[in-house]
Amino acid sequence: MAQRIVVIGGGAAGIGAAGAAKGTDPSADVRVYTEFEDVGYSPCGIPYVHGREIPDFERLFMATRETYEKAGIDIHYERRVSGFSPDRKSVSVEGEGEVGYDKLIVATGFDYADPGVPGTDLGNLYYVKNIRRAIEWDKVLDGVRAAVVVEASPLGLEMVTALCHRGIETHLVDPGAWALSVATDPDIVAPVQQSWQEKGATLHFNTKLTGFAGSGNVSAVRTSGGDIACDLAVVCTQKEANTTVARAAGIKIGSAGGVIVDERMHTSAADVWSAGDCIEVPHSVTQIPIQGLSGSHAYAQGKVAGTNAAGGERRYQPVSVPWGMMAGDWMIGGVSFSETLATALGIPHVVGVAEGISRARYYPGVEKVRVKLLAEPRSLRLIGAQLVGREGIKERADFLAMAVRTGITINDFATMENVYSPPIGALNEPIALAAQNLLAGLGS
Amino acid sequence: MAQRIVVIGGGAAGIGAAGAAKGTDPSADVRVYTEFEDVGYSPCGIPYVHGREIPDFERLFMATRETYEKAGIDIHYERRVSGFSPDRKSVSVEGEGEVGYDKLIVATGFDYADPGVPGTDLGNLYYVKNIRRAIEWDKVLDGVRAAVVVEASPLGLEMVTALCHRGIETHLVDPGAWALSVATDPDIVAPVQQSWQEKGATLHFNTKLTGFAGSGNVSAVRTSGGDIACDLAVVCTQKEANTTVARAAGIKIGSAGGVIVDERMHTSAADVWSAGDCIEVPHSVTQIPIQGLSGSHAYAQGKVAGTNAAGGERRYQPVSVPWGMMAGDWMIGGVSFSETLATALGIPHVVGVAEGISRARYYPGVEKVRVKLLAEPRSLRLIGAQLVGREGIKERADFLAMAVRTGITINDFATMENVYSPPIGALNEPIALAAQNLLAGLGS
Repeated sequence: MAQRIVVIGGGAAGIGAAGAAKGTDPSADVRVYTEFEDVGYSPCGIPYVHGREIPDFERLFMATRETYEKAGIDIHYERRVSGFSPDRKSVSVEGEGEVGYDKLIVATGFDYADPGVPGTDLGNLYYVKNIRRAIEWDKVLDGVRAAVVVEASPLGLEMVTALCHRGIETHLVDPGAWALSVATDPDIVAPVQQSWQEKGATLHFNTKLTGFAGSGNVSAVRTSGGDIACDLAVVCTQKEANTTVARAAGIKIGSAGGVIVDERMHTSAADVWSAGDCIEVPHSVTQIPIQGLSGSHAYAQGKVAGTNAAGGERRYQPVSVPWGMMAGDWMIGGVSFSETLATALGIPHVVGVAEGISRARYYPGVEKVRVKLLAEPRSLRLIGAQLVGREGIKERADFLAMAVRTGITINDFATMENVYSPPIGALNEPIALAAQNLLAGLGS
Repeated sequence: MAQRIVVIGGGAAGIGAAGAAKGTDPSADVRVYTEFEDVGYSPCGIPYVHGREIPDFERLFMATRETYEKAGIDIHYERRVSGFSPDRKSVSVEGEGEVGYDKLIVATGFDYADPGVPGTDLGNLYYVKNIRRAIEWDKVLDGVRAAVVVEASPLGLEMVTALCHRGIETHLVDPGAWALSVATDPDIVAPVQQSWQEKGATLHFNTKLTGFAGSGNVSAVRTSGGDIACDLAVVCTQKEANTTVARAAGIKIGSAGGVIVDERMHTSAADVWSAGDCIEVPHSVTQIPIQGLSGSHAYAQGKVAGTNAAGGERRYQPVSVPWGMMAGDWMIGGVSFSETLATALGIPHVVGVAEGISRARYYPGVEKVRVKLLAEPRSLRLIGAQLVGREGIKERADFLAMAVRTGITINDFATMENVYSPPIGALNEPIALAAQNLLAGLGS
């Protein structure tokens, strides 16, 4: 008889898992439960529709319900899973009752951290997540004069940029001293912050959120620096693993608050796998578990979980976490540790910085590319990087993430070959310059 | 007494060597001989001024004569070195006579291969190299109705694109079956060739040059496929190492026709170094010497030669040769071997190809990125790659060159992490997709 593989959650991890499971065992009965009306869309695109870079929400859908039916994946929409039992090998589905499984994949995603301040029950507090809600919120934005973005998280950075583009008076409130201060250093985000200010945004750093004020809808965000009047607040707090059902089922949760999985994405319970924002995975440098990565990570983890659950064999590796985004008029990105974070964690490191250029210095459109590299002091293995520029940031971050994983050193970068062609690349690659500067700083 | 370091040649290698020598030993008497009127400009920019992407030739100059004087580098312009003697430790300079040296760096660059056909003495045969000549030729181009580019070399590709942009009736003649057939496969250059045709160029592949016809100036290029009427021919034949003086001085020349150097850029003669297009260096995969690389390679080799000649210590590594350029409306690039070349050389290989995208599939400006990866059959180490797309080609080629050098495998690429952010990167990195397709083709 065909095995039944049940997936809880219809996000990138859940859909990736379902597809991989069906691909591995085409005879399997693959069933996905989602509490929402849709699967197969890109939530990551929502800020860009709000910002009018993307003309409509319809484009964010990648697949119709029929696509999944044809692929033999049985998606149950608007069905909340209230719990599961590894002993009975069943899930409890609201409206369907107890449903048995042979293999279970938990892909319950994330929730935004509770701001933990008074006033979170007010209206016009926007948590960006579901596309149907986003379509409704987009209409609300038409009537908004002033908005406050709470926290300079990656989503926060995207939303500040989007609201500025939308012509809304935009404020950013964050307890850190600069934007995305967990992942970046101040010299990297300085141009981003300047471009936001040029777009009219007001940046409230070193500022603690203390509450939301108003009657009915929010009318001000309360902070350690005073009240900021607004019609809307976008709450972009940290992503926390949604482990409610997993925890209740006795699945082991780790130090970062996510489901503990092995490299095959198997949990502490037999025949239960997990993937995506609800799990934690080890960092490649420190081996310390981390949580709350990108949609690309979720999708890749889902494919590993789905393949293994269906009887295949696929392993997931510790992560180095390349990241990148447009923020203001700049691209920023990096991998693993910033100088600030490495210092805070007590990780020994040496640093090299360079300001290079993206094309031949005389070629139209040439722009500066700032690169910072962090390395282990003795081995000179790369352990972190940050970049800011106008193009080629994503590709360099991907490269540097592979370098962190495979142990490429500053000596390798200092002597790297690079494409030199006036319209697309400068004589000296900025990464190589940063490495050469690092070595020069060591006196070698 | 200060040591005298003499450099023959004022190109990227010679200037890089002079600067590194002075940096290593500031007391040294560093002297550069060039037969030309200028140093410190970018010859690589010339095709783009002809194509009007760059508005004027003045921009190609990086440094004035005064810059070098201030840096303590003594440049002798329009001084041809007719020979040198490692025994007497002297160079023969036309107009200066015998000049002694303590250390010599030979950076005599390249010549275009003689087309070896009748009619090379005609006028309006343009060999793109020197900037003063290019300024004169640019005026000639104003009166040109039809031009033939001889050979689809990297420069040939740039010149076809430039002449099309200039509104000149452009023909390309090449004995290969497609453009740049030594470095590329036909599926990679297909979009480039289509975009040239859309710009009005006529492509004559599988066509052998047999001569230049005309009286005074060229009026037709003769080929195995018939005569092509033209006012000008741009001769873009292969770059050959200019080893005339080195050979005469008894310096050992290698199998690729370049000066043989060790990893410190030292030649077969005591106290004589060499760098740039006149030398040959081993390829990182085959260890076979190759010759005729980029300005970036020349500059880096020059720095190694100059550092060591002045008493420092720097080593050069075997090359993997990342390359890239704009051709037509596309960026193409790669590293090391194409499928065609690997097959021709009998190098065992497996191949994976993918057509990915540059941004989220719904984000404005999203474009396809085609990636082809070649690997050793057993180890799955990368040995070659090619790419075509609209952005991010240079950065990926640099990454893949480092991968060839350091032994990164297809398994590493198949499981690589990537930045996913709608405006700058897709959910799936095209390199990872090509690696996954390669593995799928192996049945693993």
